[in-house]
Amino acid sequence: MIKVGIVGGTGYTGVELLRLLAQHPEVEVTAITSRKEAGMPIAEMFPNLRGHFDLAFCDPQDANLSECNVVFFATPNGVAMQQARQLLDDGVRVIDLAADFRIKDIATWEKWYGMQHACPDLVADAVYGLPEVNRQYIREARLVANPGCYPTAVQLGFLPLLEAGVADTSLLIADCKSGVSGAGRKAEISTLFAEAGDNFKAYGVSGHRHLPEISQGLRGFAGAPVGLTFVPHLTPLIRGILATLYVRVDKGVDVQQVFEARYANEPFVDVMPANSHPETRSVRGANLCRISWHRPQDGDVVVVVSVIDNLVKGAAGQAVQNMNIMFGIAENSALTAPGMLP
Amino acid sequence: MIKVGIVGGTGYTGVELLRLLAQHPEVEVTAITSRKEAGMPIAEMFPNLRGHFDLAFCDPQDANLSECNVVFFATPNGVAMQQARQLLDDGVRVIDLAADFRIKDIATWEKWYGMQHACPDLVADAVYGLPEVNRQYIREARLVANPGCYPTAVQLGFLPLLEAGVADTSLLIADCKSGVSGAGRKAEISTLFAEAGDNFKAYGVSGHRHLPEISQGLRGFAGAPVGLTFVPHLTPLIRGILATLYVRVDKGVDVQQVFEARYANEPFVDVMPANSHPETRSVRGANLCRISWHRPQDGDVVVVVSVIDNLVKGAAGQAVQNMNIMFGIAENSALTAPGMLP
Amino acid sequence: MIKVGIVGGTGYTGVELLRLLAQHPEVEVTAITSRKEAGMPIAEMFPNLRGHFDLAFCDPQDANLSECNVVFFATPNGVAMQQARQLLDDGVRVIDLAADFRIKDIATWEKWYGMQHACPDLVADAVYGLPEVNRQYIREARLVANPGCYPTAVQLGFLPLLEAGVADTSLLIADCKSGVSGAGRKAEISTLFAEAGDNFKAYGVSGHRHLPEISQGLRGFAGAPVGLTFVPHLTPLIRGILATLYVRVDKGVDVQQVFEARYANEPFVDVMPANSHPETRSVRGANLCRISWHRPQDGDVVVVVSVIDNLVKGAAGQAVQNMNIMFGIAENSALTAPGMLP
Amino acid sequence: MIKVGIVGGTGYTGVELLRLLAQHPEVEVTAITSRKEAGMPIAEMFPNLRGHFDLAFCDPQDANLSECNVVFFATPNGVAMQQARQLLDDGVRVIDLAADFRIKDIATWEKWYGMQHACPDLVADAVYGLPEVNRQYIREARLVANPGCYPTAVQLGFLPLLEAGVADTSLLIADCKSGVSGAGRKAEISTLFAEAGDNFKAYGVSGHRHLPEISQGLRGFAGAPVGLTFVPHLTPLIRGILATLYVRVDKGVDVQQVFEARYANEPFVDVMPANSHPETRSVRGANLCRISWHRPQDGDVVVVVSVIDNLVKGAAGQAVQNMNIMFGIAENSALTAPGMLP
Repeated sequence: MIKVGIVGGTGYTGVELLRLLAQHPEVEVTAITSRKEAGMPIAEMFPNLRGHFDLAFCDPQDANLSECNVVFFATPNGVAMQQARQLLDDGVRVIDLAADFRIKDIATWEKWYGMQHACPDLVADAVYGLPEVNRQYIREARLVANPGCYPTAVQLGFLPLLEAGVADTSLLIADCKSGVSGAGRKAEISTLFAEAGDNFKAYGVSGHRHLPEISQGLRGFAGAPVGLTFVPHLTPLIRGILATLYVRVDKGVDVQQVFEARYANEPFVDVMPANSHPETRSVRGANLCRISWHRPQDGDVVVVVSVIDNLVKGAAGQAVQNMNIMFGIAENSALTAPGMLP
Repeated sequence: MIKVGIVGGTGYTGVELLRLLAQHPEVEVTAITSRKEAGMPIAEMFPNLRGHFDLAFCDPQDANLSECNVVFFATPNGVAMQQARQLLDDGVRVIDLAADFRIKDIATWEKWYGMQHACPDLVADAVYGLPEVNRQYIREARLVANPGCYPTAVQLGFLPLLEAGVADTSLLIADCKSGVSGAGRKAEISTLFAEAGDNFKAYGVSGHRHLPEISQGLRGFAGAPVGLTFVPHLTPLIRGILATLYVRVDKGVDVQQVFEARYANEPFVDVMPANSHPETRSVRGANLCRISWHRPQDGDVVVVVSVIDNLVKGAAGQAVQNMNIMFGIAENSALTAPGMLP
Repeated sequence: MIKVGIVGGTGYTGVELLRLLAQHPEVEVTAITSRKEAGMPIAEMFPNLRGHFDLAFCDPQDANLSECNVVFFATPNGVAMQQARQLLDDGVRVIDLAADFRIKDIATWEKWYGMQHACPDLVADAVYGLPEVNRQYIREARLVANPGCYPTAVQLGFLPLLEAGVADTSLLIADCKSGVSGAGRKAEISTLFAEAGDNFKAYGVSGHRHLPEISQGLRGFAGAPVGLTFVPHLTPLIRGILATLYVRVDKGVDVQQVFEARYANEPFVDVMPANSHPETRSVRGANLCRISWHRPQDGDVVVVVSVIDNLVKGAAGQAVQNMNIMFGIAENSALTAPGMLP
Repeated sequence: MIKVGIVGGTGYTGVELLRLLAQHPEVEVTAITSRKEAGMPIAEMFPNLRGHFDLAFCDPQDANLSECNVVFFATPNGVAMQQARQLLDDGVRVIDLAADFRIKDIATWEKWYGMQHACPDLVADAVYGLPEVNRQYIREARLVANPGCYPTAVQLGFLPLLEAGVADTSLLIADCKSGVSGAGRKAEISTLFAEAGDNFKAYGVSGHRHLPEISQGLRGFAGAPVGLTFVPHLTPLIRGILATLYVRVDKGVDVQQVFEARYANEPFVDVMPANSHPETRSVRGANLCRISWHRPQDGDVVVVVSVIDNLVKGAAGQAVQNMNIMFGIAENSALTAPGMLP
């Protein structure tokens, strides 16, 4: 059994990790920490877990995380970078679901996240946990930077076209829509039901922290600079991200073939038939990215639509997938359930 | 492997059966019928099932249902009673998710369902599939009448008090709230998003088909007639039923003990601590009934709150539970996933 | 023009007051205070008001409220009781939308609201602002205690039956469902979209602050003690309360006639035909209580269904109605818009 | 008083027309037709209108529409073109809320709407009812083609940039999100609450009927062909459209000034400060288009965000605005209410 610790399990990525790990045949969750909620049974905070976990939140001091095989950080940005080194030194592998190790350029990270980075050397060491790109490196990784939710949906949608060199990289547009759980389980007015319900808005148009993460990835796929415009929107659904991507691709390119070839062996990317309309609910609760594409009016603009559950393939599910890869067990362990529809 | 056939799989109970059975280690779904959609891959209608089932809907004629071990009817009321006898004669066991075999008094059934019953003798033979009451009969049953969604939530909430003889049975009130999926996957104006969204209403107050089913059950538990008022409401959530039950119970009765004792060995009923507030989302997607109770102002009125997912413990999940019991396999096969929260 | 001041306008009752007063032909809003947001234009916080109000929030110190004709308190409980006396002494009339002056029995108030009352003598002086009961007193009132949202829906639903003396007052059940805006515009986890969306729960079953307010009213109507069970539920809609009321009424009573007679001249109570199903959306944004009733299975239990918009007839609209009455202008000024459906 | 008739009032544009006209001081609704619902009081179908209209739906034969001053067609596409000529010949002015007269090129119309046009000569005569563009022509128009909902939001968002000649017209992208009421009050599975709720999808990516309408408008503003990509999405809100527009504009252009100058005298377009994030709820129920713009990373791509209520500025409100202009009364009659938030 893989001994798992979770740091900071009181948010949505925490409860989602637990929901998935409850079904994992080769995992034992040995500790889940919360300074603030120490002593509270996790099933009291998250009643869906009643009967699945007897564990209570414990103080980080008492967690004995160094005895775990792997520790997930489901914490706000800036926490994992303070605590990862000690665990790594103790031989514990680390998967950070926050942004601390995602961006290789430290100055860029510090600009967007507004703090000084505590361990730039670990950033260099960390593997960006997008299995479709880095599976071989993830296998050996000590420290995995689990991708952000928008970055997962956008990168998987652009990846085949950029790698194949068939896209005009000077103008890539990613119009993204996220469910409200993406904002986390935080007491804030803007995400109240009476504020976010029956309402739709763009936010962070002038700049959003996921922009440099996406740009870094796309640049890598293209092997060249890219011109990216990224606009996130808040939409009144609980879970789900849909990314609508616009890119110029020569009319002669067989886009379906490009996608199918790239993802032929990927268990968690589903290339749908051309002209399909993937729906977020088709992946609700599932570790899956569904993608389709269109070429309206047979022009040179290709529209790619990519959907994920922001809490699963966009966070906790991808983290479990990374763990499975790191420990050499079946990549789909605990990740086989279909989406829940309706 | 148990060979499973599904008749009429284009509704929400159909897709939910498939979602659950996709994870069942001892089941093979060999046929799913729909006269209207014959030929369409089920994953085209229900994209969450892409990659899980290659099956297409087939015409009932071509389904070879007689070679199944068990057939689920996920059909409108009145269909199963036309087709069950032949299957039973062929040695196939039958679980009807509609109402055809739920009510023992044929005249009552005919009055509420507005049609003549096709096979009263099979009604007598059928076992009402509430495992918490009839587990031993379900084991041997050829024909199981799977309970309705409201009846499951209400009966499980009243059961311990009525069996224990501690309730005033002259005035039982069941104020019930259902998600919109309970109305089925039917093209109707009243359940459109723009009609049912951001709206709340009671319906069928003067009489609803689940009333005689609930009354029949409660009468059985109490061993005497009961005075039941049942009011259903439509609430803007997709899945979930919450039943708020009002009943007079003498102040001396240890209600918590009554509930805990009755459900001590029930894997799919969770008695929460007194004064808890069960939420529908805590059982979203899970085959579970969560129950708590209160005694406001220490008076003689006890308020019981009971929640289920109407499509799982209120329909498809309970049907799988019944199948597991009928075939002597682990009762929780395919039913172990926690609820999905958020 | 009536000069209006609003204390504490950053919540939902505040913005709703402004939305209604924007259309009032005889009102000028001269000040709206918020210590925390002083200086922010109200149209910045509430963009629906752009173009309707140039006003900014101002510090209470600078508000010159004593020059207003009437001041609305849209503040948390406990604020108005600190500030009302000075305004009253200055000849300003006061309408408190919070609970400070609703409950006549000071000890009861202090028990449920957990603080010492600052001015019991003003409580004695205050008029409970339910126009259907107290219109004549409201006309002359200096200080109006605007009713709570649940209390409005429940009292108007029970009132005719209790006044007519046809109800069994020993067991009155009020099963109430509220939209999430009823919880206010406060940063809290439990009312986040991802918590309250697609979820249904009861809360405060063992005791809720609106219980004593409702009981006080019902006792007054009945002229005798009543046995009330009140259970509130949180439902995933933004606005709206639906109260389902259960009460024993002799079969011979013409309930429709009792309701129609009582409300014949009430402009803001709509008695629907018997057996109707009022919907919350039919009063969305409107200052109206719609009521219908049923007698299931022709028994002795009558079910009354009462709907309001919690922010309008349950708060800001009723406050404007009270103001209209107090100042002798048309009672429906600014209150004539139909509900918004869909 | 202007005598108003409504043909086909059983849909959402019909009920919204009535909601607005209920507050109009110079209008009398004399007839509302529905072949199917003849005899049913409109307040029975739309309970929000109880107390506001005594009218019942009547058969078109009995409607005496020729005695109206103006008739609104709130019918499916293809109806108004059959009936408009007779009314026009009788001197009745006509406002069609459907698409029959929106597209000047008959062949294009016939291709996208799949039917033969019944009166191409009237199309030539009709005025496209976007007041911000055609106010002077609307004044004298006998026949107004009320714009579609997406076309209103998109055209008003691009208009200033195209008229000013500062946009690169070769690549205009309109990523649009609509509430479900935009699909109409029709019994269809895809817009059920349990299908469209908690779900997000694109639809009609390869081609949507509003594309030629938008293209026609943009071409007119630019005085040249445009390259438009239009992608509509269905989002789980009842009312509202948000259009996110992407266009290249030289960095030297003062975009804010371009917008403010163009809309300086427009009562129903609100140019917000640069970098604002307009929300659909800020215009819920209001006849208003709110617009803002951004220039992410100071690049050459400008992002314009435009919001309307699809049933108001996108349909019934704009129709009333057109009527007000046609009859020389205050353009904002019945259109002054603020949006409803929350």
